[in-house]
Amino acid sequence: MKIAVLGTGAGARCHAAKLKELGHQVTVGTRDPEATLARTEPDMMGTPPFADFLAGHPDLALTTFADAAAAGELVINGIDGANAVRTLTAIPSGALAGKVLIDYAVPFIYNPDVPHPWPTPWGTMPRLSPVDTDSLGEQIQRALPDTKVVKAFVTQEQETVVNPAEFGGGDHTMFVAGDHEDAKTAVAELLRSYGWSDILDLGSLHAARGMEMHSHLHTAIGLALGGSHRFGIKIVRT
Amino acid sequence: MKIAVLGTGAGARCHAAKLKELGHQVTVGTRDPEATLARTEPDMMGTPPFADFLAGHPDLALTTFADAAAAGELVINGIDGANAVRTLTAIPSGALAGKVLIDYAVPFIYNPDVPHPWPTPWGTMPRLSPVDTDSLGEQIQRALPDTKVVKAFVTQEQETVVNPAEFGGGDHTMFVAGDHEDAKTAVAELLRSYGWSDILDLGSLHAARGMEMHSHLHTAIGLALGGSHRFGIKIVRT
Repeated sequence: MKIAVLGTGAGARCHAAKLKELGHQVTVGTRDPEATLARTEPDMMGTPPFADFLAGHPDLALTTFADAAAAGELVINGIDGANAVRTLTAIPSGALAGKVLIDYAVPFIYNPDVPHPWPTPWGTMPRLSPVDTDSLGEQIQRALPDTKVVKAFVTQEQETVVNPAEFGGGDHTMFVAGDHEDAKTAVAELLRSYGWSDILDLGSLHAARGMEMHSHLHTAIGLALGGSHRFGIKIVRT
Repeated sequence: MKIAVLGTGAGARCHAAKLKELGHQVTVGTRDPEATLARTEPDMMGTPPFADFLAGHPDLALTTFADAAAAGELVINGIDGANAVRTLTAIPSGALAGKVLIDYAVPFIYNPDVPHPWPTPWGTMPRLSPVDTDSLGEQIQRALPDTKVVKAFVTQEQETVVNPAEFGGGDHTMFVAGDHEDAKTAVAELLRSYGWSDILDLGSLHAARGMEMHSHLHTAIGLALGGSHRFGIKIVRT
């Protein structure tokens, strides 16, 4: 399948590499490919330069957001939450119309001038916007009415989203939410190819609020586990 | 042990009945005991009158919030989120000073005039206040600086908090957060007596934000499971 991964951060790289390994034709999108390749320093999250990653994955194509979106039959949004709506709406609408777009972004607002009062090892903690009465997933769907937005992946670190069987026998739960049933069916198929067996459909895209707002509990759990990224949520039920 | 349960809602009843069963001396607190006993209609959540519950648990004492708090060595706050700070600070401070107070309230704001846009079977969905940059747990701790507040129970329906072994072999995770280590130790002991074996300490009371904000995901999961209250979260990790 032709799949576009928009963004070059750590999460986007996990999906691009895994999708290529699964035999898909993967195009990675970025704002300015030359600038992305020219970077030699880690980004604000400490992720190494994209050129280093690409050296180990020479069969991945890197192009603009617009060209990547146009090339994909399915699109994964890995653009950071604060820039997602602006960046996605700048893509010519024909490139995304009628397509499934998986959004896993958390709408974190970084503001180094106003440290978050929750102390974390990295000094400040972002806040969420939107929160509670709206979600980034819903904002993206409203901004792209001809695209089928599915919120997924967001409750877990992306390196284990693509390899759930790495711990706990893979028996944890992945949530999906969206207003288009056929789109959620396509995403569930992709998730099964990643190794997921317990996929829980939370219904309409309104559920993206709870999925995004889980990020603070997710962060606290990771800290409680010593900074681990290797954990998941299993919904235990009768 | 002498334990006070403040509140007469469905959650408070679960704890009062379980604690009595475990052999504790339980005092239930309410604003106006006579008015509570005189009610003959279900409350806004559909919970039957307290008098019906008390008829089945005649060995439980019902008194005012102040007298219940004074009688308890450990206090469980089952007052609804919107009224918790106001009600707790109206209790003479000596009755709560130096004691452990377990808070499991979600700071839901009910406003029937402004329906929440998330459609639920019960028509409207409350929003959260505080949210994201503060929590009810922290508000209560600031309002009661001489009390040791521990946030717990909040990520699960209370009928299974008191009986975790009812499903999944009891192998799910209970979170605690608070600024007082000795208080968290006491709460963990209580949780083990309820049947919990996987108790995850999330650190300081700042983590109450994530625990309370999980409520929207919790609601969505319950709806996805057909309105079930019988589910829990297991943090699967390496």
